Amino acid sequence: MSDEDTRFMRRALRLATRAAGRTSPNPMVGTVIVRGTEIVGEGYHRAAGEPHAEVSALTKAGDAARGATLYTTLEPCAHHGRTPPCVDAILAAGVRRVVAAMRDPDPRTDGKGFRQLKAAGVEVEPGVLEAEALRLNEGFVSRVRRGRPFVVVKLATTLDGRVTAPGRRYLVGKRALREVHRLRDRSDAVLVGIGTVLADDPALTVREVTGRDPLRVIVDTEARTPPTAKVVRAKDPQHTVLFVARDADARRTNKLREAGVLLTTLPRADGGLDLGAAMRWLGEHGVNTVLSEAGPRVAGALVRGGLADRLMIITAPIAGGDGPPALAGVTGTAELKNLRVRRFGEDVAVEGDL
Amino acid sequence: MSDEDTRFMRRALRLATRAAGRTSPNPMVGTVIVRGTEIVGEGYHRAAGEPHAEVSALTKAGDAARGATLYTTLEPCAHHGRTPPCVDAILAAGVRRVVAAMRDPDPRTDGKGFRQLKAAGVEVEPGVLEAEALRLNEGFVSRVRRGRPFVVVKLATTLDGRVTAPGRRYLVGKRALREVHRLRDRSDAVLVGIGTVLADDPALTVREVTGRDPLRVIVDTEARTPPTAKVVRAKDPQHTVLFVARDADARRTNKLREAGVLLTTLPRADGGLDLGAAMRWLGEHGVNTVLSEAGPRVAGALVRGGLADRLMIITAPIAGGDGPPALAGVTGTAELKNLRVRRFGEDVAVEGDL
Repeated sequence: MSDEDTRFMRRALRLATRAAGRTSPNPMVGTVIVRGTEIVGEGYHRAAGEPHAEVSALTKAGDAARGATLYTTLEPCAHHGRTPPCVDAILAAGVRRVVAAMRDPDPRTDGKGFRQLKAAGVEVEPGVLEAEALRLNEGFVSRVRRGRPFVVVKLATTLDGRVTAPGRRYLVGKRALREVHRLRDRSDAVLVGIGTVLADDPALTVREVTGRDPLRVIVDTEARTPPTAKVVRAKDPQHTVLFVARDADARRTNKLREAGVLLTTLPRADGGLDLGAAMRWLGEHGVNTVLSEAGPRVAGALVRGGLADRLMIITAPIAGGDGPPALAGVTGTAELKNLRVRRFGEDVAVEGDL
Repeated sequence: MSDEDTRFMRRALRLATRAAGRTSPNPMVGTVIVRGTEIVGEGYHRAAGEPHAEVSALTKAGDAARGATLYTTLEPCAHHGRTPPCVDAILAAGVRRVVAAMRDPDPRTDGKGFRQLKAAGVEVEPGVLEAEALRLNEGFVSRVRRGRPFVVVKLATTLDGRVTAPGRRYLVGKRALREVHRLRDRSDAVLVGIGTVLADDPALTVREVTGRDPLRVIVDTEARTPPTAKVVRAKDPQHTVLFVARDADARRTNKLREAGVLLTTLPRADGGLDLGAAMRWLGEHGVNTVLSEAGPRVAGALVRGGLADRLMIITAPIAGGDGPPALAGVTGTAELKNLRVRRFGEDVAVEGDL
């Protein structure tokens, strides 16, 4: 791959990112069309049901696409979804060369897009900035390959690993809070346990930054969520999923259903709910990414169950506190990969993949 | 203060630091003598009993000191200690101006040095880079003002705040370990509890960097330290202080005394030993700085007892672990000041003052 290829693919990746949190169940895709050294068209997939990135870019390029190189962050689709196959559009436009970052894991494409392009005489170069593209769409890849969303477990702790401190509503400061809301905006769903609902009554909306609210997911084994809770009384209660046990109190369960939330029953497991089943349910409902803001009990269960893909610990410069250990019941150890350390004001965020 | 003054004082501070961990019970002091814009002499206090920084610098400057400006990180002493008063030497050399970073808290000087210089017609400018000088000698200042050493509590934890992880001798990596040994070299004493001695049998020497071994301090309420422990069988056992309870088993106590360690009895308190008394004992014995490498129990007791001045948490990129919370029994919260975040390979060190 040439420096040029890398440069234009980076542009395509940046375009794709603009729709973070908006494309599910689809992936994020960005496309740049280049003639000589000039960009003649670009586009990105804005939301499910909207045109694919390739088609947006081809439309903008018009006749200039003939003989051009098309850079795209994902293999062009070969199947009819809500829109016709991108491969057809690329061939119709007379593109000479297609540079792609990664293969589409969707079984309806999965190499077929590349094969059809090659068969039609288009030069195909896959794998340019593949690692970046895989990370960009880690949620989509997770859902397609494993049938469940990519799960980021976020926890705020004191310096000595406690999750609560007497007399403090938030451990971390404004700048870290803003980052969490930015993450909410880019995640399909945000998840908490009933403990957090009862203790904090969170709205789980995006307020500190401009954005759109994610799906709200509550793990509530015994259906104890008060019908007066903010997540139930939201203006869009159907955007709240309550996971309760199959044998939870029927009266409470019905009350919550009547309040308009999406109540889903699951088997019990591991002293609570079967969180693997919860994740599969979310995957089936098109959720690519989940941000867990749950406390130690649910966070610990996600890690124990092998359902946590990334851990993000935000440490406040506070010594002392109370509450259970940050990851309750996790005694096996896992070393984190791709470590990233950031400061938000006085707080330190350490993030890594499990 | 002028830019020049700041620049030369910075040089003096750097010189002083060279003897970190070597000057106790004395402070670290650096001196620079400047004539016009040229340094004509400089020196630092290398060890107790050795010449003071001012005298070293004056000796080097010789006749050039006449009419010069003397920069010193600490008020020149006005008293006869193991060496004659520096004020006398400064006056004898004909220095015209003395710029000092901080006043000497030692009651035998404490402003008297400045007054004597002024009375003899020397221009005196105190307070240049005072905060830096106070930090440099935080140990000395602590011992003189509070009768106890400055205590840094270091703990290594997993990302979720555990201090041990199954199957791992060290949580943190080589680079963090090297930093800890560098801290040992610069501290007068390193402290652990009996739990650490029994679990790890540490030598508490400086090995990962070139340096000198600190005093080894063991908090061992019931005198359970095995006579075969490395800290007892060291080539200099008299450099090991064991704090035991007054009513600890006499046979074990005697055995340890016979082994040559410095065994000291203390009252019991707070479920263990009176650590305040331990710190006063160390202060009386000329220890300016203590690095606690103790586990959660002793670390927690130091924080609870108001004896911890700085907290340094080194976090390994590991999720899960076991053992008690990092600061056992600390439920009140304290916000850390002067936060400092550093990375050592994959580990993250967060440090702040309590």
